[in-house]
Amino acid sequence: MKADGSNRVFKDPLSIEEPLEIRIGNKPFVVTMRTPGHDIQLVAGFLATEGIIANPQQIKEIDHCKLASHPNNTVQTRLENSSNSTEIISERFGAISASCGICGKTAIESVSRNLAHIDSDLKVSRSTILSLHSTLRERQSDFDQTGGLHAAAIFDKKGELVYVSEDIGRHNAVDKALGFAFMEKMWPLDEYILLVSGRLSFEIVQKSLAAGVPILVAVSAPSSLAVSLAREKGQTLVGFLRPPNLNIYAHPQRLS
Amino acid sequence: MKADGSNRVFKDPLSIEEPLEIRIGNKPFVVTMRTPGHDIQLVAGFLATEGIIANPQQIKEIDHCKLASHPNNTVQTRLENSSNSTEIISERFGAISASCGICGKTAIESVSRNLAHIDSDLKVSRSTILSLHSTLRERQSDFDQTGGLHAAAIFDKKGELVYVSEDIGRHNAVDKALGFAFMEKMWPLDEYILLVSGRLSFEIVQKSLAAGVPILVAVSAPSSLAVSLAREKGQTLVGFLRPPNLNIYAHPQRLS
Repeated sequence: MKADGSNRVFKDPLSIEEPLEIRIGNKPFVVTMRTPGHDIQLVAGFLATEGIIANPQQIKEIDHCKLASHPNNTVQTRLENSSNSTEIISERFGAISASCGICGKTAIESVSRNLAHIDSDLKVSRSTILSLHSTLRERQSDFDQTGGLHAAAIFDKKGELVYVSEDIGRHNAVDKALGFAFMEKMWPLDEYILLVSGRLSFEIVQKSLAAGVPILVAVSAPSSLAVSLAREKGQTLVGFLRPPNLNIYAHPQRLS
Repeated sequence: MKADGSNRVFKDPLSIEEPLEIRIGNKPFVVTMRTPGHDIQLVAGFLATEGIIANPQQIKEIDHCKLASHPNNTVQTRLENSSNSTEIISERFGAISASCGICGKTAIESVSRNLAHIDSDLKVSRSTILSLHSTLRERQSDFDQTGGLHAAAIFDKKGELVYVSEDIGRHNAVDKALGFAFMEKMWPLDEYILLVSGRLSFEIVQKSLAAGVPILVAVSAPSSLAVSLAREKGQTLVGFLRPPNLNIYAHPQRLS
């Protein structure tokens, strides 16, 4: 609708959202609503950031499942037996299924996980951090068109872009970027910076800690729990990256 | 950090994020990360918009659980036996638990649900829709301080605000608003408008359809799947509500 109250019919490009079913072996594990593309990275990242697998060798097979009724929206994985998956699944996801009884842990306690403290002595200049904003915007191909995609990007300590991903889901964008690094055997990412386009929730901090990220930067606001988790775990947390300003919420010592 | 590169230490109010454990009976059902406040509405809205209950009489009891180890973050419900919960839980949530075997449906198919077509003949003027934006901003108490909260608001057909909720999670804000209406026996909301502050995903459309909302309005972009679901189900979908402009993505006939 235009300012004068009249209508105009036009083509408005939309962010694509489709379900992705993740299977472990032949069993459906979880469905996430995501933007198609980088599905393998997304699934690897999901499994790794959720603590279901610890290294890429545990993935024996990962691919779209050609036999599924929605092959483009189904990724099947075969994991090494030694993987953590059965235990994790019953401890963390089992609580929401009534048909299999309730696991011992209360659900709230299962939200927080055993994540290593970040001890990286990475130091990055403030001007490098400030420069990430424009680098991300230049590469965020879809956002300007649709206004509907989140981005996550990995940068090296000089501020060079290593990988950028986009997705309708904040978590998915992060899983894609961290999943790329996981498959490339870059974990722990103790010399890298992770930048996310949106807000910073507890779960984003948790995922980045699983990958060992020492500096996490967001364009928008962090939550209370995101800040307290970063403080506890030794992660530098930057929010409201809006040059020439930025806010540091935790462990400013890595910004020189 | 200031423009000249120097630091300033200041108090930055943060959006509060804490886990809420929802119990059905004595069993943990699901944990959601939410902003405390309106917890009862949130839980009622979650159960109703997910199709676990169909009317408020099915809730025999709903309250914070004083005996839990985190009483302020635990809401316990007692539902009528006739409720849909066991079936729903095993069909829709059971697929992500390996310990109880796999339900018959594939996980992707369980994402879409049987939702009624919207047949409301509600008509609202465009100027009323445009006015919702400033009404919401005036009432969004926390957003300007933290930049981190989503809002959802129910308006009547004259544009009068009925209820507004805020939460760090988009879905939670919607569940709180729709849960309020559910408990007040206002469902189906066939004479009302739902406005959300953020983006419009498939799941938000799904929740609003469960409540019978004929006009769904968002300040930001809808996804492809959100638009196709609204088109299929007869819901009027408005995005990018930024006066003097708005975009209509589905069923414009309700805007006069």
